[in-house]
Amino acid sequence: MHRTAIYPGTFDPITNGHLDIIKRAVKIFDTVIVAVANNVGKAPLFTIEQRVEMIKESVKGISQVEVDAFNGLIIEYCQQKGATALIRGLRAISDFEYEFQMALINRKIGKDVESVFLMPKEKYTYLSSSIIKEIAAFGGDVSCFVPDVVKRHLNDKYAETKEHA
Amino acid sequence: MHRTAIYPGTFDPITNGHLDIIKRAVKIFDTVIVAVANNVGKAPLFTIEQRVEMIKESVKGISQVEVDAFNGLIIEYCQQKGATALIRGLRAISDFEYEFQMALINRKIGKDVESVFLMPKEKYTYLSSSIIKEIAAFGGDVSCFVPDVVKRHLNDKYAETKEHA
Amino acid sequence: MHRTAIYPGTFDPITNGHLDIIKRAVKIFDTVIVAVANNVGKAPLFTIEQRVEMIKESVKGISQVEVDAFNGLIIEYCQQKGATALIRGLRAISDFEYEFQMALINRKIGKDVESVFLMPKEKYTYLSSSIIKEIAAFGGDVSCFVPDVVKRHLNDKYAETKEHA
Amino acid sequence: MHRTAIYPGTFDPITNGHLDIIKRAVKIFDTVIVAVANNVGKAPLFTIEQRVEMIKESVKGISQVEVDAFNGLIIEYCQQKGATALIRGLRAISDFEYEFQMALINRKIGKDVESVFLMPKEKYTYLSSSIIKEIAAFGGDVSCFVPDVVKRHLNDKYAETKEHA
Amino acid sequence: MHRTAIYPGTFDPITNGHLDIIKRAVKIFDTVIVAVANNVGKAPLFTIEQRVEMIKESVKGISQVEVDAFNGLIIEYCQQKGATALIRGLRAISDFEYEFQMALINRKIGKDVESVFLMPKEKYTYLSSSIIKEIAAFGGDVSCFVPDVVKRHLNDKYAETKEHA
Amino acid sequence: MHRTAIYPGTFDPITNGHLDIIKRAVKIFDTVIVAVANNVGKAPLFTIEQRVEMIKESVKGISQVEVDAFNGLIIEYCQQKGATALIRGLRAISDFEYEFQMALINRKIGKDVESVFLMPKEKYTYLSSSIIKEIAAFGGDVSCFVPDVVKRHLNDKYAETKEHA
Repeated sequence: MHRTAIYPGTFDPITNGHLDIIKRAVKIFDTVIVAVANNVGKAPLFTIEQRVEMIKESVKGISQVEVDAFNGLIIEYCQQKGATALIRGLRAISDFEYEFQMALINRKIGKDVESVFLMPKEKYTYLSSSIIKEIAAFGGDVSCFVPDVVKRHLNDKYAETKEHA
Repeated sequence: MHRTAIYPGTFDPITNGHLDIIKRAVKIFDTVIVAVANNVGKAPLFTIEQRVEMIKESVKGISQVEVDAFNGLIIEYCQQKGATALIRGLRAISDFEYEFQMALINRKIGKDVESVFLMPKEKYTYLSSSIIKEIAAFGGDVSCFVPDVVKRHLNDKYAETKEHA
Repeated sequence: MHRTAIYPGTFDPITNGHLDIIKRAVKIFDTVIVAVANNVGKAPLFTIEQRVEMIKESVKGISQVEVDAFNGLIIEYCQQKGATALIRGLRAISDFEYEFQMALINRKIGKDVESVFLMPKEKYTYLSSSIIKEIAAFGGDVSCFVPDVVKRHLNDKYAETKEHA
Repeated sequence: MHRTAIYPGTFDPITNGHLDIIKRAVKIFDTVIVAVANNVGKAPLFTIEQRVEMIKESVKGISQVEVDAFNGLIIEYCQQKGATALIRGLRAISDFEYEFQMALINRKIGKDVESVFLMPKEKYTYLSSSIIKEIAAFGGDVSCFVPDVVKRHLNDKYAETKEHA
Repeated sequence: MHRTAIYPGTFDPITNGHLDIIKRAVKIFDTVIVAVANNVGKAPLFTIEQRVEMIKESVKGISQVEVDAFNGLIIEYCQQKGATALIRGLRAISDFEYEFQMALINRKIGKDVESVFLMPKEKYTYLSSSIIKEIAAFGGDVSCFVPDVVKRHLNDKYAETKEHA
Repeated sequence: MHRTAIYPGTFDPITNGHLDIIKRAVKIFDTVIVAVANNVGKAPLFTIEQRVEMIKESVKGISQVEVDAFNGLIIEYCQQKGATALIRGLRAISDFEYEFQMALINRKIGKDVESVFLMPKEKYTYLSSSIIKEIAAFGGDVSCFVPDVVKRHLNDKYAETKEHA
């Protein structure tokens, strides 16, 4: 039986914490689709194309992983892809609450998709995309928190900002 | 002795979780006033009139309940109404923190009003107005989370959005 | 309508935090029964008679309060007393979890009794009977944490322990 | 590829919450081994044989499930069984902390086994074996919390206690 | 050895809770620099100059305290000032999570600066600058939450708002 | 000004997490006294002498550290030693609650001693003496969690247990 899992998120940008979760997910599922939310409301730093591209570059070499953009309700996307499970990284308490809420709501709407929580390495427990952007914006070094491709994109983005300022 | 309690909130819109709390509150208090915050800053989806109207429709038949809009500090509104207690629904941890903060601040300002926490049914533990709006915005079915009148309003609202898009 | 609430606990011994909750409860309910659990398993420091007596002494002058001992399931005791509500003090997070658990279980068993959570003064937020006993056992001063009668009983208890040692 | 997961615990006794997790796990894994800890130190209410028997009876009809007893470190048991994953039910906050601790320690010792957290139905969120025993000990009805076989065992156990008293 | 600690924040405006932490910090460190974040993104109510001025007025008489504004990463500011430690007030759970995150990130970037958490008085546990502004905006009395100078500034600010309205 | 801090605990046995906190504390204080609680009630695995000895061996080479045993209330011990601060390691949520409680109680009893919370490395966040003992009891390898001297003592202890069994 072939099992597909979806790992959804904004990934603005992808971090080493996200990558760590992806590598754990492929040990359990046959295919893992990293699904990037094309969420207009949130005003992301990177375009949906850039976010997808950075993930593709970062997961190169992990054959079971696909990267895709999605609109609308994640649970409908799961059903459309025939996914068994929805992967969530369990980072910290605030997360836990939000994840519970999402998982229970998703369960009500989409009965066949199971929320599966995986735990990243301790050193990624407190990592988030927004903290990465905050550090990068101030010129801090984010090398140990993100893949190389993201580091380059962040440098370009903030260099660009400075030039325009 | 006649005891009045205030149940304040933004109610944008009212959910089945709110209704569950109201039904519990009327077992303890003689009158329960659902007080809708006319909070300009927050940019609610529904106008204050719509929010009040949806609650009125939803609590029809529970004789001890009144619905009202209020401005300013909730604690002053309580004193003006002669309320003994401020009803709060205890949903989740993040809530708990915020509620503690509000309760302690209210206590400092208005000594005679007691914060009373009630617990909704488990299935409403993780329900919130914002999650409802998120699901509805993507065309998801919210029937089991909100009263009928709210479902109709949400449908109208998002149909309207689509027409204008 | 006359409303009765039960405030259950081990009260081994009663603290100023418990007293604070009792004083809040009588603002909302007509009668508050402080129900002392005669829980053989727990090996309390004080006998059930001593615990009841210390509470009676501490609530003297608050006319709406009754003190009683109970065996078995609290929810059955509530029904037997015709109580509308079960009072719980909300002190801290660990509490919150345990209280949720108890409230949901009680709700399943006894449909007519509502769990009502009240918040003690900030300075009692972290107070517990076991910490009081720990301090008293080491000869620390507990005057600002417990009623006088409890202080006397603790002094007697630990003096007695020393004599026997 | 055949994937085996271990679901470890004391199961003293198994509850509907545990059963709910097992049913979710079999959607994701080919074989789920319910591994009952033969933990002498903990003084369980039921013998290891009774606990295994009650689970076997409860999971009858779910073909992918095996039930077994184990001694020692769970992580070594996983490796011995060739398991990919360790299933954990995520019930509440206190749990979350403990589970994180166990998962991180297990990860340090056994690199190849992934901790996978699943979420039970809301109504089982606050359910635990110890609460079941507490209710049953006082003669409360536990029908909606445990499988029939467990209910019978609990009745026998506490009837027996009364006869000996 | 002379030890300097930095106490960073937005201080929009400073509250009695912040002052309480400062008074605790000077018992442990020789110099405490209150570092006001000149964070353009956050749209503070008060200008950086006003915020610095209010703190200076509030800490007058505590000789070991300096007040300063800073841009960029706090950890670089610490190194530039030769600080041994970064002071953080530990108020509530949500805080705890965020503080952990910041402390771990700071540690990765600036190895020599230690995050030191101090606990304010219980009555300040749930106090925050934003709650103060919310109360003041509605004309509530904030005397017991902020220093006099802040109260005056808040009154001016909201009187000004009303005049322009 | 010479500043002394006390780092109290049961240390049954000391772990790398404790050592990590000690190394952080000496950056801030001139003298750090590791104070081992001679708590008869708790039935520790190691005697007070063994616990003190293992710590002494582990901190050899850190000149500012002293190791001592104490009885009674920690806050009285602090005053007797002229300590400015009480060091606490902040590991996880449950801790946080307990630590808050202890810090507030200590503050009420001993006004001059400040509770100072330090954060261990992420990899020690979930480490505890009891988990170490659990792993060691089952013959698991604890090399990466404790100093060498502790590993040897644990091996001796559990070998001894087996011989007697």
